[in-house]
Amino acid sequence: MNPYVIEMSGRGTHPSVLDVHVNIGEKSSMQGKMKGRKARWCVKPSDMANNTFNPIRAIVDSMKVKPNPNKATIALSIGDPTVFGNLPTDPEVTQAMKNALDSGKYNGYAPSIGYLSSREEIASYYHCPEAPLEAKDVILTSGCSQAIELCLAVLANPGQNILVPRPGFSLYKTLAEAMGIEVKLYNLLPEKSWEIDLKQLESLIDEKTACLIVNNPSNPCGSVFSKKHLQKILAVAARQCVPILADEIYGDMVFADCKYEPLATLSTNVPILSCGGLAKRWLVPGWRLGWILIHDRRDIFGNEIRDGLVKLSQRILGPCTIVQGALKSILRRTPQEFYDNTLSFLQSNADLCYGALAAIPGLRPVRPSGAMYLMVGIEMEHFPEFENDVEFTERLVAEQSVHCLPATCFEYPNFFRVVITVPEVMMLEACSRIQEFCEQHYSAEGSQEECDK
Amino acid sequence: MNPYVIEMSGRGTHPSVLDVHVNIGEKSSMQGKMKGRKARWCVKPSDMANNTFNPIRAIVDSMKVKPNPNKATIALSIGDPTVFGNLPTDPEVTQAMKNALDSGKYNGYAPSIGYLSSREEIASYYHCPEAPLEAKDVILTSGCSQAIELCLAVLANPGQNILVPRPGFSLYKTLAEAMGIEVKLYNLLPEKSWEIDLKQLESLIDEKTACLIVNNPSNPCGSVFSKKHLQKILAVAARQCVPILADEIYGDMVFADCKYEPLATLSTNVPILSCGGLAKRWLVPGWRLGWILIHDRRDIFGNEIRDGLVKLSQRILGPCTIVQGALKSILRRTPQEFYDNTLSFLQSNADLCYGALAAIPGLRPVRPSGAMYLMVGIEMEHFPEFENDVEFTERLVAEQSVHCLPATCFEYPNFFRVVITVPEVMMLEACSRIQEFCEQHYSAEGSQEECDK
Repeated sequence: MNPYVIEMSGRGTHPSVLDVHVNIGEKSSMQGKMKGRKARWCVKPSDMANNTFNPIRAIVDSMKVKPNPNKATIALSIGDPTVFGNLPTDPEVTQAMKNALDSGKYNGYAPSIGYLSSREEIASYYHCPEAPLEAKDVILTSGCSQAIELCLAVLANPGQNILVPRPGFSLYKTLAEAMGIEVKLYNLLPEKSWEIDLKQLESLIDEKTACLIVNNPSNPCGSVFSKKHLQKILAVAARQCVPILADEIYGDMVFADCKYEPLATLSTNVPILSCGGLAKRWLVPGWRLGWILIHDRRDIFGNEIRDGLVKLSQRILGPCTIVQGALKSILRRTPQEFYDNTLSFLQSNADLCYGALAAIPGLRPVRPSGAMYLMVGIEMEHFPEFENDVEFTERLVAEQSVHCLPATCFEYPNFFRVVITVPEVMMLEACSRIQEFCEQHYSAEGSQEECDK
Repeated sequence: MNPYVIEMSGRGTHPSVLDVHVNIGEKSSMQGKMKGRKARWCVKPSDMANNTFNPIRAIVDSMKVKPNPNKATIALSIGDPTVFGNLPTDPEVTQAMKNALDSGKYNGYAPSIGYLSSREEIASYYHCPEAPLEAKDVILTSGCSQAIELCLAVLANPGQNILVPRPGFSLYKTLAEAMGIEVKLYNLLPEKSWEIDLKQLESLIDEKTACLIVNNPSNPCGSVFSKKHLQKILAVAARQCVPILADEIYGDMVFADCKYEPLATLSTNVPILSCGGLAKRWLVPGWRLGWILIHDRRDIFGNEIRDGLVKLSQRILGPCTIVQGALKSILRRTPQEFYDNTLSFLQSNADLCYGALAAIPGLRPVRPSGAMYLMVGIEMEHFPEFENDVEFTERLVAEQSVHCLPATCFEYPNFFRVVITVPEVMMLEACSRIQEFCEQHYSAEGSQEECDK
């Protein structure tokens, strides 16, 4: 026996708990029988854990269908350009990492917001006269996800709200709701190449609005806003005094006929936190190197928001130092050809996919201008067998082994998202299977079943 | 003019805000003059940002002293073994990273809790019959800091409390207070080699106690708990039904005369989340590869806590995939000699530092048994010139250019912490300067000034 335990038991300052303790180990199955009594152990997840909800996981995990065993699976569902091996990163990027390893200089702790030299590199890479940047305006993060998390965490208190695009990347909602921040959804208009419904956006703003999230180029839409449209968005923000969180992780990833305008270059007065990272453009999403660019030429964020971001970054420190150490070479040595090749591949696949799907009765794809995605409307009235986009995509898996994400994952029912990073032959095969699927289920009459009800 | 803006201005649904908007750009310096009026822009950091407080930064940044220009600076303040270049990681560790890069297999997203294969490697590395582990019991994180953050976030709600060692690593408090979790400090006893004052610990527990943090081996103490003491700690946790967060980032880093016992191997009933990582033992703290080992043989955490951890991990996804990909080789191929060499170096430096400081009148070092630190008590009555440990260490910088952290940073005044990872010659030089410093300021009589007051 342990003398300390005896002594403590004798103190009796926690009689009820000690009482309970006496039972420990005597009957390990007692817990279930002790209804109505205080449980001996009661370890429950926090509200934050319970409120952390990833709709993609929830919807995808509940789709209990198996692919058609006679057809090889084609996954157009995962926004990861690396899975098929057809889009490797550039050798210079890998070499930069090896050099950082060999130097032995990047094994220790960096400052929680990143090495000064790495932040200088990002600042000079993204600096432009209309939106100047210095190292002090750059915070390195563990992926763009953490960049977005830090921005939301610094800007919004529980009970405040943020404006989030619909359809939009589900992480905004996942992060906000975990922090007790309300999400207000503003509409993107498919008929206007997914431009924002600005009136509806502005109508959502109230005194509790902490920030407006603008995602350009867009996941899941693959849309790219024009300069004019971005100026209108900025006008709303300026008028309503709402700062902007610009999710620009697909920045510069736009097709040949299109120009990407970093939001901050178009405004002199709206304070903007622009989030980006290596993930998409350099095709290394697993490396978890993201950043926040602080644009605050009117000193509206001031030192307070900057200090807040620094303080929040100290909770888990920054991204992997090897990637930070490689950053200079990654930014300077990656050849232009690499970026061009990625984009021409994506554009070619987008054209191919759009062309094929646009020819299928019952589907209404929206032509993308950038990023890695394409949204496809389903004329549900012509597919009376299916209740919604979740059922449609579920059956597409079961019959054709083609995985697409139902856009309910992005708060946008009756659409599905196609990832266009797969090899061309796979893209073609997927489109032809989608065509077969649609032909088999298309009803020119519209939903007879619905009418019968 | 932008027709949309005119249209919106005409709507007038937000008259006060629009009113304010009219002023934008007319007088950029108006804000300061508008006292009493609603500010046009009001962007303040959130309460969480304001409540994120790093005491080390606060104390160190407020120490406005300059080192003595005639003496080279010796930093015994930074818990980073890599800064002096005398403790490089093993070549196998670097090679494992290069191989992971060359494979091209680890550029994409991993699951947010880490690759299954990497989690299997950690599970089998730390598995033992008394505390079995499988891949499902392992969550990979962005450094041990994120491991601790996830554990606190899943276990405690705002308003609950956690039990934290004093002296102890400041991150616990930083993280907890950012989340609105109360910190209750339990005492470590220097006269008992920093064992826990178990009575006082137990007296702090109430119905709102969400978890007990046990840090073994200890930062800042360098202490290592005996098996018997760990069993007593577990007895308190079992009796009070409080789960344990075991911060074991210095696990296995103990000196030759001492044995490290993973806490979970000594308990069959207390649910334990053990946090660790590559940072210290493999000497790569910047790489940000940490983990949580879930020990729950009585199913007290159950699926709920596991699911909660998984959900929380989805906020920023896991650690850098290259490090994850290298994990198998790092664990399997790092030679035993590497670990042994690190420890014998640390032990030798610890002995050297302890011996030198123990001989200095007015100082009372506590001999460490592991980790990378040594705590030194200051008999403040013999240093009447100095108010406290902050002033003592400040003057030590100003006169001797030796940086140590005042233990006020660890909630433990009148001590200072010495980092023992510096090269031996530097360690010796630092000790001799500390000796000179103490001799110059020591007063055998005790504080005459204090008595005069």
